Amino acid sequence: MTAPFADRCSRLAAEAGGEGVAAVLVAPSPDLAYLTGYGPPVFERLTMLVVRPDRPPAMVVPTLELPLAREAVGERVELVGWSDGADPYALVADRSPAEGRVAVADRTWASHVLGLQAVMTDVGFEPASLLIGRLRAIKDADELAALRRAGRAADETFRQICAMPFLGRREEEVAADLARLLVENGHARADFTIVASGPNAASPHHEPGGRTILPRDAVVLDFGGELAGYFSDTTRTVAVGEPPEGFAEVYELVREAQEAAVEAVRPGVAAQDIDRAARRIVEAGGYGERFFHRTGHGIGLEVHEPPYMIEGNETPLSAGMTFSVEPGVYLDGRFGVRIEDIVAVTEDGVERLNRSTRELQVVN
Amino acid sequence: MTAPFADRCSRLAAEAGGEGVAAVLVAPSPDLAYLTGYGPPVFERLTMLVVRPDRPPAMVVPTLELPLAREAVGERVELVGWSDGADPYALVADRSPAEGRVAVADRTWASHVLGLQAVMTDVGFEPASLLIGRLRAIKDADELAALRRAGRAADETFRQICAMPFLGRREEEVAADLARLLVENGHARADFTIVASGPNAASPHHEPGGRTILPRDAVVLDFGGELAGYFSDTTRTVAVGEPPEGFAEVYELVREAQEAAVEAVRPGVAAQDIDRAARRIVEAGGYGERFFHRTGHGIGLEVHEPPYMIEGNETPLSAGMTFSVEPGVYLDGRFGVRIEDIVAVTEDGVERLNRSTRELQVVN
Repeated sequence: MTAPFADRCSRLAAEAGGEGVAAVLVAPSPDLAYLTGYGPPVFERLTMLVVRPDRPPAMVVPTLELPLAREAVGERVELVGWSDGADPYALVADRSPAEGRVAVADRTWASHVLGLQAVMTDVGFEPASLLIGRLRAIKDADELAALRRAGRAADETFRQICAMPFLGRREEEVAADLARLLVENGHARADFTIVASGPNAASPHHEPGGRTILPRDAVVLDFGGELAGYFSDTTRTVAVGEPPEGFAEVYELVREAQEAAVEAVRPGVAAQDIDRAARRIVEAGGYGERFFHRTGHGIGLEVHEPPYMIEGNETPLSAGMTFSVEPGVYLDGRFGVRIEDIVAVTEDGVERLNRSTRELQVVN
Repeated sequence: MTAPFADRCSRLAAEAGGEGVAAVLVAPSPDLAYLTGYGPPVFERLTMLVVRPDRPPAMVVPTLELPLAREAVGERVELVGWSDGADPYALVADRSPAEGRVAVADRTWASHVLGLQAVMTDVGFEPASLLIGRLRAIKDADELAALRRAGRAADETFRQICAMPFLGRREEEVAADLARLLVENGHARADFTIVASGPNAASPHHEPGGRTILPRDAVVLDFGGELAGYFSDTTRTVAVGEPPEGFAEVYELVREAQEAAVEAVRPGVAAQDIDRAARRIVEAGGYGERFFHRTGHGIGLEVHEPPYMIEGNETPLSAGMTFSVEPGVYLDGRFGVRIEDIVAVTEDGVERLNRSTRELQVVN
C-alpha cells in the first residue's frame, strides 16, 4: 500500500513543474490522504505537505503528531516538527520558493492561507484543484475496485429498502433504515441519506424530517457512504402506490435523459457533452428550467470532486474517470424526480457502477 | 432557539464596525452554525454569509439548497441563490465593500478564499478568528448547560471504563469501549478515543492500535464526543497494577501542575498565566522539556477553539469562557502522563466541568 503514494507525489511534482508551479501546499484533506496515506484529525495546528518539482517532499507537522505522521509516511516524506508557540508558516515558507506560483490544496483552511500569505509576500497563490484534481480524477485498479464494491453495496441497499414499508412512516425513519442498510451491506459509515417525499422532493438537497409519507407520494432516495475510503452515491425515485398526477411523464423523461447521458460517456468526449446529452432531452420535454443543477460530479475519496459534468467544462473524459450522472426535474409544491448512477469511463466506453433497476419501483 | 442567532449576527456586525472591519465572510463551519443555526453539508459549492456593520446580513447559497437554508434562517438573513455555472464569488463581491478590510472565517476553504481574492482585488483579507472567536469564547447559559452535560457524560464514561479489564486487551478494544460508553452516557457520537499504553503514551495524539496492554503499563485515556452540538474532552492516566518505575513522581507532578493551573483560573487573569501556572511546577520538577504542548484550548462547538492557554496569549479570562487544562509529561520509550479537565470561568473563580477523581486509578 505504500507504493502508490511515492508515485503520486512524484507525478504531482512533475505536473507542477510542467505547469510552471513552483510548489504545491497540501493541508490535511482527501488530497493529503491521496498523496501520502496520512489522514490526521483536522485541527487548528498546521500540518502541511510541500511538494516541489525540484526537491523531495517535506511535511510540516505539530511535534505532538510526529509519531503518527512518521508511522503513516515512513521515510517517503521529510518531516519537520513545530511546537506550540512556534510559527509554522515560517517553516513552510522556508521550504517553499521565495517567488513564483504556489498552489494551495482546496480544503486548506482560510486561517492557514492567510497565515502563509502574510509571510510569503512575493509569491502568487492559486488553487491546486486543477493539478491535484486531474491526478485524482483517473482512478487506478484498486480505486476502481473499491468504487465497484461501494456501488454494489448501495444497489443492494436500494433493493432492500424497496421491500420495506414507506406509507405512514416519517421520512427520517426511512432515512435511518437507509443508513443502517448501507452499513450492513459493507459501508464503514453512511454519509448522507436524503428521503424527500411528496412536495419535499422538489428540494434537491432536502433534509429528511418529520413528514409522514402519504399515499400517491413520489419519494426521492439519494444515499451513499464510505467503503474502504471511497464513496457510493446513488438516487432513485419511487412511488407509494399509484404515482401523482403528471409524474409518469416526468419520470420517463428523466430516465431517458439519464440513459442518453450515460450512453454518451466514452474517452475523448468533453465533460460538458454529458451534461448536454441529458439537458437536451429534458429541454425537449419542456422541463429545461426545472433541471437547475449540473448533470454530475466526480467521485472517489470525496463524494464531490472533479471532473464536473457541467456546461463550460471542456475536459476530455479519460479511462479511469468516475462520476455521477444524475439529471433531475423539480416541480414546486408537487414532486421531484432524480435518477443517479455512478459510472466509470473505460478504454472504449462506459461501465455503470450502479445497476439498480431504473424502471419505476412502486413501494408500499 | 432563533433568538440567539439574530443577536449573535448583530454583535458580530458591531464588533466588526468597532474594529474597522468592513465585512465578515463566513462559509459553512461551526462559525456559521453559531451565527445562524445553519449547518449545511460542506461541499464544493459556495455558501457564504456576509455580515456588515452597515447592512443586515445576507447569505449566498446554491439554488438547490435554498429551501434548506430558508428553513434554518427564516427571515433573519437575506438569501441570494446561485445556480450551477454562475459565479458565486461575484455575488459575494456584490454584497461586500469594494475596499477596506474583510475578515474571513477560519475554516473557509482555500479554493473559496482564492476565488474571492481574484474578484475582490482592492480589499485586504484577514482571518476572522479574533472577531468571531471572542464572541464564541463567552458561553451563554444554554451553552454552559450543554457543556456541563457533556462533561458529566464523559466523567461517567471514565468511571465505567476503570471497572473494565485492560490487561491483555488491545488498545483499540479499550477505545471501542470508550466510544460505546460515550454514546451510552448521552453523547450523540464519540469524536476521539485515544488509548495510549506503555511507551505509546509518550505520543500525545497516539492512534489506538493493536498493541496489547501489559502488566505495569501506564495508559493515557483521552476521549470526548458531541452532545447537543457541544463537546466533551477529558484525559486521565491509569496504571495497570503496579505502575512503572519513576511513574509515581511524574504523575504527582502533573497532578499538582493541573491543580495549580485550575486554581489560577478567574476573571481578569491572562490566558498565558494558566499555562505558566502549570509549566512552573513541571519545570521545577525537572521535566519542563517533556511538557511540549500548550496547557489548554477553548471548547464549545469545536473541540479546539479560542481561547488557547499558551505563552504569549494575553487575552484576559472572562466569565463564561470554557477551556481545557491539560498539562502532560512524555518520556520517550517509557510512558506518558496527562490529566485534563474542562473548566468554566465564573464571576469570581472557576467551575470544573469534569469531576472525575484525579487520584491515580489502578485498573486490572
